[in-house]
Amino acid sequence: MPKTSNKPLILITNDDDITSPGIHNLVAAVKELGKVVVVAPEKPQSGMGHAITIGEPLRMNKMNLFGDVEAWQTSGTPVDCVKLAVDKILRRKPDLCLSGINHGANHSINVIYSGTMSAAMEASIEGIPSIGFSLLDYRYEADFTASKYVVHKMVSRILSKKISKHFLLNVNIPPIPLSELRGIKVCKQAYAKYEEDFDERVDPQGKKYYWLTGKFVNFDKARDSDVYALQKKYVSVVPVQFDLTNYKLKAELEKNNLFG
Amino acid sequence: MPKTSNKPLILITNDDDITSPGIHNLVAAVKELGKVVVVAPEKPQSGMGHAITIGEPLRMNKMNLFGDVEAWQTSGTPVDCVKLAVDKILRRKPDLCLSGINHGANHSINVIYSGTMSAAMEASIEGIPSIGFSLLDYRYEADFTASKYVVHKMVSRILSKKISKHFLLNVNIPPIPLSELRGIKVCKQAYAKYEEDFDERVDPQGKKYYWLTGKFVNFDKARDSDVYALQKKYVSVVPVQFDLTNYKLKAELEKNNLFG
Repeated sequence: MPKTSNKPLILITNDDDITSPGIHNLVAAVKELGKVVVVAPEKPQSGMGHAITIGEPLRMNKMNLFGDVEAWQTSGTPVDCVKLAVDKILRRKPDLCLSGINHGANHSINVIYSGTMSAAMEASIEGIPSIGFSLLDYRYEADFTASKYVVHKMVSRILSKKISKHFLLNVNIPPIPLSELRGIKVCKQAYAKYEEDFDERVDPQGKKYYWLTGKFVNFDKARDSDVYALQKKYVSVVPVQFDLTNYKLKAELEKNNLFG
Repeated sequence: MPKTSNKPLILITNDDDITSPGIHNLVAAVKELGKVVVVAPEKPQSGMGHAITIGEPLRMNKMNLFGDVEAWQTSGTPVDCVKLAVDKILRRKPDLCLSGINHGANHSINVIYSGTMSAAMEASIEGIPSIGFSLLDYRYEADFTASKYVVHKMVSRILSKKISKHFLLNVNIPPIPLSELRGIKVCKQAYAKYEEDFDERVDPQGKKYYWLTGKFVNFDKARDSDVYALQKKYVSVVPVQFDLTNYKLKAELEKNNLFG
C-alpha cells in the first residue's frame, strides 16, 4: 500500500454514532497501526443505506472523545461523513477506511440497507480501500474483545500488502468468545431477504401508525455464503463491489433483442 | 408473466414525492396496461439511497390524486413505500413494480444514491420484476412526452414475456424530443464518481455549514456504458442486481489466503 508519510492514514466512521462502543473499540484495535482520524455521525444512522444529504446543509464539529486521536462529528449520514472527510477534513487521501464496528449483523442482504457498509462503499468509490466490520450483537453492552482481535489481525495483514484502490470487504463477526472462533472465511453474500410484518398501532388521536419489523429468511444453501460461515462460527468476509450491472441479464437482453 | 387476474397488477412508486409530474406521467403511460396502485412518499426523498425507517413509525394515507387509480402517500422512504405496499396495501404480489419517472439522471454511479432505483431494487429483492425510469431533466417543468412513449413501449414488451422474478432495470432517458431518440440500448453501469466540493458558508451566528456539491467525472471509455449511450441519444437500459459480491476478488483472496 502506498504511503506518503511513515504511518498509513486510516479514516474511521460508523453508522451507530460517534459515542457508540463499537467505534471506540475499532479505534482501540487499530490505533497503533497508523494515524487514525475519526469522522462519524452525531446521531444514530442505522438503516440509512447509501443516503446522502442534499436538501439541507451539513455541520461538523471537532470533538475530544478519543484521547489523542483527531475526531469530528457531523450532522450527516455515514456516506456524508466519508465525503466530508475526503473533501474538508483530511489533508491527503487515506490509505484505508474502516467502518464500524457495527452493533448488529450486516451479512447477506443487510449490505444493501447498512449505513456501515454504505460508508465503506463510498470510500471504495473514492478509490480508498475499505472494510466494514459488524458484530452480531446489537446491544450497547456487546463484548468487542474477540472483534478487536479480528480487526487488528485483518488490518495488519492488509496494510502489509499491495491492494487495489477499490478493495472493499464486508466483515461480520459471530458473538462468541475468541477461543470459540474457528477462523476467517472468504464468502459470497447469502441470498436472503426480510419478510415484512409491519406492527400496526393506533395513536392517542385514533390514527393508525406502523413500525417496520420483519423476519429474516435465508434462501441460500451454498456452503460459501456468509450466513453459513457465521453459523459455523467463522468470521465471514464478503468482497463487495459497486458495479451493480447484472452482466448475465445484459447478455440475455442483447441476445433476445427485447426492446429492439 | 404469471397473472392471477385478467389484468397485471402494477405497483408504482418514486422518490420525488407523490405530487411530482414524473410519477403522474408514469401512471398515465401504463394505466391502460394493467391495474395500477400508487404508493409514494409524501415528501421529496431524492438521494435517500436504500434507507429504511427503523427509529420512528410510519404513516400512510389514501389519496385522491390520480383519478380512478388507487393511491397512497406514506411518511417513509421509497424503500419503505415498497415494503408497506407489499405487506399492508396490496392484496396480492404485484406482477411489476415501476419507479419514477425521476426528475434527473440515475445513470452510472447514481444507481447507488438513487431513491428511485432503491425502491425498484427493494421490489426485486421481494421477487417482483421492477424498472426504475429517469429523465435527464431535473426541472419540475420537464417534458415527459418522449419518456411516456418509451415507458409504454418497454412495459408492453415486458408484460408480453415471461421474465424472471428478480428482473431489474435502470432506464435513463435523454432530454430530447422523441423524433431525435435513436433507440433503446442495453448497457453496463459506467464507471464514474462525483468529486465532492462542499460549499462552505457562515450562518448569521458565525458558525460554518456545508452544502454538498460535486462534479460528475466519468472514467469509463467503454462503448457499452450507459453514459455513452445517453450521449449518443439512446435510452440506456442497465440490468441491475442486488448480489454485491465481488466474485473476482473473492477468488483472489481464496487463492492468496490473505487471512489464513
